[in-house]
Amino acid sequence: RRRGYPEAVLCDAKTVDQVRRVAAECRERAHGPVLFTRADPARAEAVLGELPDALHVPEARMVAWPPRPPEASGGTVVVVGAGTSDLPVALEAELTARYLGRPTELVVDVGVAGLHRILGHLELLRDPAVRAIVVAAGMDGALPSVVAGLVSAPVVAVPTSVGYGASFQGVAALLTMLNSCSPGVAVVNIDNGYGAGHLAAQIAAPGPQPAD
Amino acid sequence: RRRGYPEAVLCDAKTVDQVRRVAAECRERAHGPVLFTRADPARAEAVLGELPDALHVPEARMVAWPPRPPEASGGTVVVVGAGTSDLPVALEAELTARYLGRPTELVVDVGVAGLHRILGHLELLRDPAVRAIVVAAGMDGALPSVVAGLVSAPVVAVPTSVGYGASFQGVAALLTMLNSCSPGVAVVNIDNGYGAGHLAAQIAAPGPQPAD
Amino acid sequence: RRRGYPEAVLCDAKTVDQVRRVAAECRERAHGPVLFTRADPARAEAVLGELPDALHVPEARMVAWPPRPPEASGGTVVVVGAGTSDLPVALEAELTARYLGRPTELVVDVGVAGLHRILGHLELLRDPAVRAIVVAAGMDGALPSVVAGLVSAPVVAVPTSVGYGASFQGVAALLTMLNSCSPGVAVVNIDNGYGAGHLAAQIAAPGPQPAD
Amino acid sequence: RRRGYPEAVLCDAKTVDQVRRVAAECRERAHGPVLFTRADPARAEAVLGELPDALHVPEARMVAWPPRPPEASGGTVVVVGAGTSDLPVALEAELTARYLGRPTELVVDVGVAGLHRILGHLELLRDPAVRAIVVAAGMDGALPSVVAGLVSAPVVAVPTSVGYGASFQGVAALLTMLNSCSPGVAVVNIDNGYGAGHLAAQIAAPGPQPAD
Amino acid sequence: RRRGYPEAVLCDAKTVDQVRRVAAECRERAHGPVLFTRADPARAEAVLGELPDALHVPEARMVAWPPRPPEASGGTVVVVGAGTSDLPVALEAELTARYLGRPTELVVDVGVAGLHRILGHLELLRDPAVRAIVVAAGMDGALPSVVAGLVSAPVVAVPTSVGYGASFQGVAALLTMLNSCSPGVAVVNIDNGYGAGHLAAQIAAPGPQPAD
Amino acid sequence: RRRGYPEAVLCDAKTVDQVRRVAAECRERAHGPVLFTRADPARAEAVLGELPDALHVPEARMVAWPPRPPEASGGTVVVVGAGTSDLPVALEAELTARYLGRPTELVVDVGVAGLHRILGHLELLRDPAVRAIVVAAGMDGALPSVVAGLVSAPVVAVPTSVGYGASFQGVAALLTMLNSCSPGVAVVNIDNGYGAGHLAAQIAAPGPQPAD
Amino acid sequence: RRRGYPEAVLCDAKTVDQVRRVAAECRERAHGPVLFTRADPARAEAVLGELPDALHVPEARMVAWPPRPPEASGGTVVVVGAGTSDLPVALEAELTARYLGRPTELVVDVGVAGLHRILGHLELLRDPAVRAIVVAAGMDGALPSVVAGLVSAPVVAVPTSVGYGASFQGVAALLTMLNSCSPGVAVVNIDNGYGAGHLAAQIAAPGPQPAD
Amino acid sequence: RRRGYPEAVLCDAKTVDQVRRVAAECRERAHGPVLFTRADPARAEAVLGELPDALHVPEARMVAWPPRPPEASGGTVVVVGAGTSDLPVALEAELTARYLGRPTELVVDVGVAGLHRILGHLELLRDPAVRAIVVAAGMDGALPSVVAGLVSAPVVAVPTSVGYGASFQGVAALLTMLNSCSPGVAVVNIDNGYGAGHLAAQIAAPGPQPAD
Ligand SMILES: Nc1ncnc2c1ncn2[C@@H]1O[C@H](COP(=O)(O)O)[C@@H](O)[C@H]1O
Ligand SMILES: Nc1ncnc2c1ncn2[C@@H]1O[C@H](COP(=O)(O)O)[C@@H](O)[C@H]1O
Ligand SMILES: Nc1ncnc2c1ncn2[C@@H]1O[C@H](COP(=O)(O)O)[C@@H](O)[C@H]1O
Ligand SMILES: Nc1ncnc2c1ncn2[C@@H]1O[C@H](COP(=O)(O)O)[C@@H](O)[C@H]1O
Ligand SMILES: [Mg+2]
Ligand SMILES: [Mg+2]
Ligand SMILES: [Mg+2]
Ligand SMILES: [Mg+2]
Ligand SMILES: [Mg+2]
Ligand SMILES: [Mg+2]
Ligand SMILES: [Mg+2]
Ligand SMILES: [Mg+2]
Repeated sequence: RRRGYPEAVLCDAKTVDQVRRVAAECRERAHGPVLFTRADPARAEAVLGELPDALHVPEARMVAWPPRPPEASGGTVVVVGAGTSDLPVALEAELTARYLGRPTELVVDVGVAGLHRILGHLELLRDPAVRAIVVAAGMDGALPSVVAGLVSAPVVAVPTSVGYGASFQGVAALLTMLNSCSPGVAVVNIDNGYGAGHLAAQIAAPGPQPAD
Repeated sequence: RRRGYPEAVLCDAKTVDQVRRVAAECRERAHGPVLFTRADPARAEAVLGELPDALHVPEARMVAWPPRPPEASGGTVVVVGAGTSDLPVALEAELTARYLGRPTELVVDVGVAGLHRILGHLELLRDPAVRAIVVAAGMDGALPSVVAGLVSAPVVAVPTSVGYGASFQGVAALLTMLNSCSPGVAVVNIDNGYGAGHLAAQIAAPGPQPAD
Repeated sequence: RRRGYPEAVLCDAKTVDQVRRVAAECRERAHGPVLFTRADPARAEAVLGELPDALHVPEARMVAWPPRPPEASGGTVVVVGAGTSDLPVALEAELTARYLGRPTELVVDVGVAGLHRILGHLELLRDPAVRAIVVAAGMDGALPSVVAGLVSAPVVAVPTSVGYGASFQGVAALLTMLNSCSPGVAVVNIDNGYGAGHLAAQIAAPGPQPAD
Repeated sequence: RRRGYPEAVLCDAKTVDQVRRVAAECRERAHGPVLFTRADPARAEAVLGELPDALHVPEARMVAWPPRPPEASGGTVVVVGAGTSDLPVALEAELTARYLGRPTELVVDVGVAGLHRILGHLELLRDPAVRAIVVAAGMDGALPSVVAGLVSAPVVAVPTSVGYGASFQGVAALLTMLNSCSPGVAVVNIDNGYGAGHLAAQIAAPGPQPAD
Repeated sequence: RRRGYPEAVLCDAKTVDQVRRVAAECRERAHGPVLFTRADPARAEAVLGELPDALHVPEARMVAWPPRPPEASGGTVVVVGAGTSDLPVALEAELTARYLGRPTELVVDVGVAGLHRILGHLELLRDPAVRAIVVAAGMDGALPSVVAGLVSAPVVAVPTSVGYGASFQGVAALLTMLNSCSPGVAVVNIDNGYGAGHLAAQIAAPGPQPAD
Repeated sequence: RRRGYPEAVLCDAKTVDQVRRVAAECRERAHGPVLFTRADPARAEAVLGELPDALHVPEARMVAWPPRPPEASGGTVVVVGAGTSDLPVALEAELTARYLGRPTELVVDVGVAGLHRILGHLELLRDPAVRAIVVAAGMDGALPSVVAGLVSAPVVAVPTSVGYGASFQGVAALLTMLNSCSPGVAVVNIDNGYGAGHLAAQIAAPGPQPAD
Repeated sequence: RRRGYPEAVLCDAKTVDQVRRVAAECRERAHGPVLFTRADPARAEAVLGELPDALHVPEARMVAWPPRPPEASGGTVVVVGAGTSDLPVALEAELTARYLGRPTELVVDVGVAGLHRILGHLELLRDPAVRAIVVAAGMDGALPSVVAGLVSAPVVAVPTSVGYGASFQGVAALLTMLNSCSPGVAVVNIDNGYGAGHLAAQIAAPGPQPAD
Repeated sequence: RRRGYPEAVLCDAKTVDQVRRVAAECRERAHGPVLFTRADPARAEAVLGELPDALHVPEARMVAWPPRPPEASGGTVVVVGAGTSDLPVALEAELTARYLGRPTELVVDVGVAGLHRILGHLELLRDPAVRAIVVAAGMDGALPSVVAGLVSAPVVAVPTSVGYGASFQGVAALLTMLNSCSPGVAVVNIDNGYGAGHLAAQIAAPGPQPAD
């Protein structure tokens, strides 16, 4: 990739065999890093068969190779998850940001039904070292509006498909986030933790530094 | 109306002439109260031509007759509006609740982009005399989730059509509210301040329900 | 929960293991009550493994702990289900209202295709002790409009996903209810018996609201 | 028209000039009947300029020519309108059925918010001479389900665009009607009084169908 | 059922056990007829366990009891299916009409991609004994418009969920039918062969409608 | 334009002034041809002010310059319009194809409600000189399926926004066309006569494609 | 088929048994060619049981018979697939075009995220022998706009259901393609490789040749 | 505003009078900066009546006060507009970013229908001083995918409502952008140039974030 970022392989649109072949190629070309995203157990296993030392994080449905992310540099990326059910997406964002070379922090179970929970993390969220905040939320998707109202850093909102009925597999949360009444929020696709983490890492990238 | 509530006339689906005829009938039958809702200037004027002493509240697009609501009884209904643009809907809810005989309070410009604003009204919102809270909000529609997380009273959420683009004339706010991650929220139609105020007044009705 | 209501755990967005861990925590902290909602057999079993004396109501997909709801107080909550297929949602609403401490009544199989059925329950529906009525209906979702036209109590409408084709998994019923031509209706998410029962119990709460 | 029914001209998709030309042709060919539907004042006037003796019913947005419908025969078509705002659509259905040669009856302002109103017309609705019932309703569109549950005649349901917000210009009513929990209901397009009246007249046609 | 039509049981929204109980009741009360619709093998078997002589038509996903429909009377109901994949819905319509007591005819595989096929059945379609025509079609749903343009009898259109992609499980066909450019078409829910057959049988009922 | 086709200016998304400036540029550069599409009277006049000899076809909402299309070559493009209301779109397609250098034929008022009308044009539609057929239709959008079933030439279907209610401004026709049960149909945007005519002209281009 | 094209059998809307019967008929009538599309392993096997020498291409979910396509004639059809996951649809288009008798070329893995990839195929895409280009793409569906901007040949765009979340099973790509800012693009149904290949083959058909 | 950014007033959801009052307040409090967005001529004039020296940029529908933005610092924000019709949104983004203190560059008329246009700006887009790129596009919304594939900087995509028919007032472009096949893209609401410019300015902010 000409832009110097890790290669990513979206596994769920590929057969197990196609995934295995991509992993084998990685092994042969012996350069990385590469991220296998949305990998169910069968596809993760196919990758590990070819790249046995790869890092498998089942909760994030990811396999990353080589097993260690690059040295961290640039601003910190904070990843916030509204509820436990948003954890897979939050973890996917965090791991992606780390493999793009950023220091990361994870904050979870801080939905707006209990405001004191997110308010308890204000110090971290407002830390000047923090250059990007990813917020993952399902159901009403209200958390990014609240977070963006509290901080100066840009917020990357990820709607999750958590919910039922009129949540429409994440559409309700997506619309909430697109209509945020706080400026400073942009949105990625539903359940797209990878995209959110990638963008956040680009935002927080170190130099060639802008003049201050 | 057989249930002992004021009659209501939805004006915008009627011609000016139809509205005038309904108002004339009210005058003749000489009993009330009656609420003319969604009344533009032409329809409001048609009502006032027949019922000159009626109360016209242009900001709420309402005409109410007789000019005074019944004596207040029952629990207090608090009406909360997220932004200035939600004011017409909030006022419609408040006036309706008052004409159903409830004491009311109005709180406005307390959107979640600045949490301190709604937190500044916690005492009122948690007052045990408050038996129902109406929350009107457009754009992301996040305020009812936040309010319901702070109080014990039932919350009647009204999405407003304030916004543009992916707000889809209030659909985004409607979905947010239907998917509230705080329990204790129910939703009425977009811009339906009348319905919200009516339901809130029923909830906060004194003692046993009025006999049918 | 800071508002004095039972804790609720939405099981279907959690893994069996996560559910078990929450149940174990409940056992250890030894205070309740707690409601496990949308619990399929595997998740219900996980809860019962940790809380063997919990009340499991499979038709409502719920597990409640401790096995008895609190002493009933406040107004009565009537739960109405249009058809047999709406029963799971109706039962979820009823059990929730009972665990929030309300006396409840259940009325089922009273859809509008045979008006005499709902008219046969008028006495109960109009009983002044009844402070909130939950109406669950799928397909055309017409029952709440009819019920609200017959009573003075507030109606909490729950669309269910019962139906096929253009019912769009409950969206048709949801829209019907949002557009009710009778005032006095508010709506919760599709299949959200929990939310309806919770709100109804708040509405029918005795005296002043529980202090926060 | 080869099937022996009146010709119909859908005016609102045509320019005033196109409408005038069609009317002039009618005059020249001197045979009828012809129905001009969805005719605003300008288009109605264009028709009347060419066919001065035509029947103009502004409330139905129709012009019919010749000024009298054919002799009535076959079963009766009853047209039911839920509210005053549904009147234009109900009148369009009635006039169409009359120009296809059926005896008609009109029943209005009988929405489900006050059940006694529709129940007061049971004798007519169940009259064996009635072979088809058109029911026009907006907002929740619940009336056809209720009517079909009370009668044996087939019900042709017409959703109207009356309502606001989540009525989505008649879509909510359309979906309600497609999901009717009473059998014996079929649906035509939103605001399509013409189509409903036409179909009802075909249903109620005398003896064997007209030869093609 | 008070209107003198067979009882119908929508099986797919009920558990196998609930279906069995309904069948057992039928057996005990020993009166009929009753139609079990949308019955998968397990539910059909549950019915047959209680009513062993019932008629099972697996292609129509129906079980009917008693095994013979009533004597046929009234006008003929023709059921037209566009393609082989629409057969289950067409058969459901036909069997329903037969159990409401109408003579029926079935015409299949006559989609508009080969016009000669439907044109080859014109004599039947225009037979004056035919009082109602059901047309089932998926994908583009164009057949009802074509048929209605050829005949005088009323057309009951049933969209089917046959198709993929932008057919949206029958929505595309539904919209086509609602917008038919031929008058004389009304529409029932997607895949609702039962409703279409029921309505067609009501339309084609002999003499005055059955007394209620 | 580097591909050798006329330049096109979509006027309705531009201010009158922007349109005038583009026309002035054309005059100065003095080469053509250029098509101004979706030009209302004000925008058309702005073009004609700069290019007084341009061809204005108000029914097609187009201005073309120079006033004559290039010499015709390649296969014939037939443009079919279902109803009179589809004429503007059909004319836009025809004029565009002519300015790309194709011979064209126009066939109108041949909707499927009267099959004999389209069948009366079979000879032209099946003429081997015809290399592409554009079919514009609104409401049910059924005509392209019928035409494609009758011919061997490729069909370019254009849904029009003609209709009301559930036609959703052309969406119903669009879906019908995408789901055509006849192969040999592809679809362009609603009301996009320009795009349909352009594509048809490319399809019917003579010999090898123009060199890039 | 009167138009001289191969017969096609859409397998996924048919039972295994229905598919087998169609294949048996083909064997008996002994003429072809016939294409079995959207054939899963069970249905493909049913075909092969009756037509053992048929060509099975599992990646395209197709069985074709006889095993060889007709001699190639006419212009070349190029099939372009944006990503590996679009391969099944691209292959279905290619095989269909070949069975309609066209020479074909396949180009894959050339999505717009790396423009150099598609630009590396410009010579083929602009070859005057190429008379039609099929472009299959999922997710953002942006490739057809880019390709159509580079070539003179007509582009048949096929949206694929590849993606997740707000791709809505191919709707996002479908809309992108319908709104292409490059003229010269028409669209078929989501995942409809068969339809795209069929249309492309019709476009590229040899004589009776248009005059040059 | 507590976060150190300019205050913004969304004018189109306010009456002219409300806008005037806000402007008057600004004058009195005499501190800034403040941005009036989506201001039509009447609302702009109301602002200028109170703040006569304010900067009015009618093409961007904005009024900014004081007339000069703060000194520029931090990384450069590049704003890219696909077509001339996207200019208002692009200008709104640029002016907003400038008033948050960033140096900006504007690039317009570079849609993907002519790739050479955007490729001609590669040097600027890849300049290390550029820390954020805003891309505004309507119709197919394909440009952000192409741009993000060419650069390392984060891309903030703004769908515009430019287009017609199936562009659905910007929804098609919105979905394209959410499904970008290039990582590094996040999306704001349709036509939300303000939000895009604000976020881009936050991303490109110098050094550590401004203290809260
Ligand atoms: N069936 C349900 N439907 C909607 N919300 C629920 C349901 N059950 C629990 N909840 C809410 O979801 C929250 C629990 O979310 P969680 O912490 O993810 O278990 C609780 O605070 C409840 O308010
Ligand atoms: N109000 C209406 N709604 C639906 N279809 C109509 C209406 N009025 C007329 N039509 C049908 O549209 C056809 C007339 O279309 P046109 O030839 O464009 O005037 C007639 O054959 C009628 O069947
Ligand atoms: N009526 C139309 N519908 C769709 N696209 C059009 C239309 N007219 C022009 N275009 C395309 O839009 C582009 C012009 O856009 P613009 O530069 O904004 O005028 C041209 O390249 C045409 O390909
Ligand atoms: N064009 C715009 N689009 C979206 N949000 C905006 C826009 N202009 C202002 N805002 C936001 O809306 C809020 C102002 O709302 P209000 O107080 O109602 O004027 C500000 O805090 C801005 O963040
Ligand atoms: Mg912020
Ligand atoms: Mg609460
Ligand atoms: Mg009531
Ligand atoms: Mg009936
Ligand atoms: Mg007919
Ligand atoms: Mg063809
Ligand atoms: Mg091209
Ligand atoms: Mg990039």
